[in-house]
Amino acid sequence: MSASLQNIVIIGFGLIGSSIARAVKEASPNTNITAYDSNHEYLDYAVDNDIADSGYDYPDTYLAEADLIVLCTPVGQMEKIAQSIAPFLTKKNVISDVGSVKQSVIDHVSAALPYPEMFVPAHPISGAEKSGPSAGFAGLFKDRWAIITPTEMTDLKAIESVTALWEICGANIDFMEPKHHDLVLAITSHLPHLIAYSIVGTASNLAEDLQREVIKYSAGGFRDFTRIAGSDPTMWRDIFLENKESVLDVLQRFHEDLSELQKAIRQDKGDMLQDHFTKTRKIRNAVIDSGQAGRAPYEDK
Amino acid sequence: MSASLQNIVIIGFGLIGSSIARAVKEASPNTNITAYDSNHEYLDYAVDNDIADSGYDYPDTYLAEADLIVLCTPVGQMEKIAQSIAPFLTKKNVISDVGSVKQSVIDHVSAALPYPEMFVPAHPISGAEKSGPSAGFAGLFKDRWAIITPTEMTDLKAIESVTALWEICGANIDFMEPKHHDLVLAITSHLPHLIAYSIVGTASNLAEDLQREVIKYSAGGFRDFTRIAGSDPTMWRDIFLENKESVLDVLQRFHEDLSELQKAIRQDKGDMLQDHFTKTRKIRNAVIDSGQAGRAPYEDK
Repeated sequence: MSASLQNIVIIGFGLIGSSIARAVKEASPNTNITAYDSNHEYLDYAVDNDIADSGYDYPDTYLAEADLIVLCTPVGQMEKIAQSIAPFLTKKNVISDVGSVKQSVIDHVSAALPYPEMFVPAHPISGAEKSGPSAGFAGLFKDRWAIITPTEMTDLKAIESVTALWEICGANIDFMEPKHHDLVLAITSHLPHLIAYSIVGTASNLAEDLQREVIKYSAGGFRDFTRIAGSDPTMWRDIFLENKESVLDVLQRFHEDLSELQKAIRQDKGDMLQDHFTKTRKIRNAVIDSGQAGRAPYEDK
Repeated sequence: MSASLQNIVIIGFGLIGSSIARAVKEASPNTNITAYDSNHEYLDYAVDNDIADSGYDYPDTYLAEADLIVLCTPVGQMEKIAQSIAPFLTKKNVISDVGSVKQSVIDHVSAALPYPEMFVPAHPISGAEKSGPSAGFAGLFKDRWAIITPTEMTDLKAIESVTALWEICGANIDFMEPKHHDLVLAITSHLPHLIAYSIVGTASNLAEDLQREVIKYSAGGFRDFTRIAGSDPTMWRDIFLENKESVLDVLQRFHEDLSELQKAIRQDKGDMLQDHFTKTRKIRNAVIDSGQAGRAPYEDK
């Protein structure tokens, strides 16, 4: 591993944080990993399983030793975390994050940090249903995309450190403008989650008998939505609030398109439906061709 | 195999029809399977691979020999098929189908048949992305539900034959009132498909650059929708048109629930979002507990 990553602090030691730690330890066992989390069970798990060398439930001088500090909490907590670690930071510490929203994280975290040019916003795209450090594993990011969204002020050396981290984790790296990232993710991830949460919520409002049947016969499509709607509630609450503008924008487009299909059904316009479904099949084939269709083994658990 | 199933005719030799044939041949190689399909390639495939003993592209006297005739075409074609086979039928032939909509199939098919009491409507719940006989396999229905929806007039012996078929295929069998089936399936399958078709359609309307990125970064949730939206266009056109009433009904409920979430995001109601997402997680856990969460191996292809 490059000399610039001897000491890594991971703040928020859940699924993502623990998976980064596992991947780093696997590639380079001598790298020192420090876990910072308010959950003592997570810290005990990390140290007992040799995923982290030490664990803290408070910020302290250990932060100044870090080559890289990665914020792995829900995005709504990142501003407070940044404020709490700020007093211990020097210009040598590179800071990064893994949030699914970039512009609001940049705004909030940069304002809290003494050296905002050392903050390299990033986002590894790798969904997972389960939460917590025991659900993490070293291969979580392998062959998935990690998107780095630097701003004009971001330090180039700092970007190199974060690039090195994601290379170690086996991710494919890409660069994107933060606001554009938020729009793309609103379409590919945030809207699908909102819709899944909504349709599964509709089922949870059904009469008890009907709800039992819906669960029993869920293999016809509903099941796939429940997987998405089983994602971490706090993480997703934060994502929707922090990426509000893009989410509401794509939701509006979705509403319009769904209304068109609704009207086609009501008016028996079979040709229009079939044309639409033939178009979407092409998109499916493009996803398969892009190599992104395969599911990670953990997704079937 | 029970003596009542020595001769089976399968009309529509695609994914479902060929999978039934494979399952029967695996359990009872001596059962005679006849395939009837307008697609000669499908018939050749069936006979060349010993999945069917003979193939026809027209109805004829072979139908009168059948212990069981299973309609495996898209539901929109079943009325015409029933009309075309009607002249060859005797009271001995049991007829069944595999359509995802039951009430309209019952109405149309029963009216066309000389002995409507011998028609046993059924629906095996087992989604699959690919179409055609080469995508079929004997285990498609194993441990999935097959729902039989008899009417008051349905012959009891005929129901026994169809029950025997699905037992041979390894399915769990359940009975349901046809209209109720159509409502449950509208929630568990038809609405999820309509929504997936809609959101993937939204993506297909994006500017080319953005669409390329959406496909590239589809692993965050969108990918799962493309799988559903890659389903057979003709089959799904028919389902939405034949189950119009229930689909439009549940779509209305979905619209209302989605609008509530939309409002919560717009008004920064984080607590409401988190409560909702916690509720949906419980439904996910119920799906896992029901044993319906596991994906069949073919679903990852």
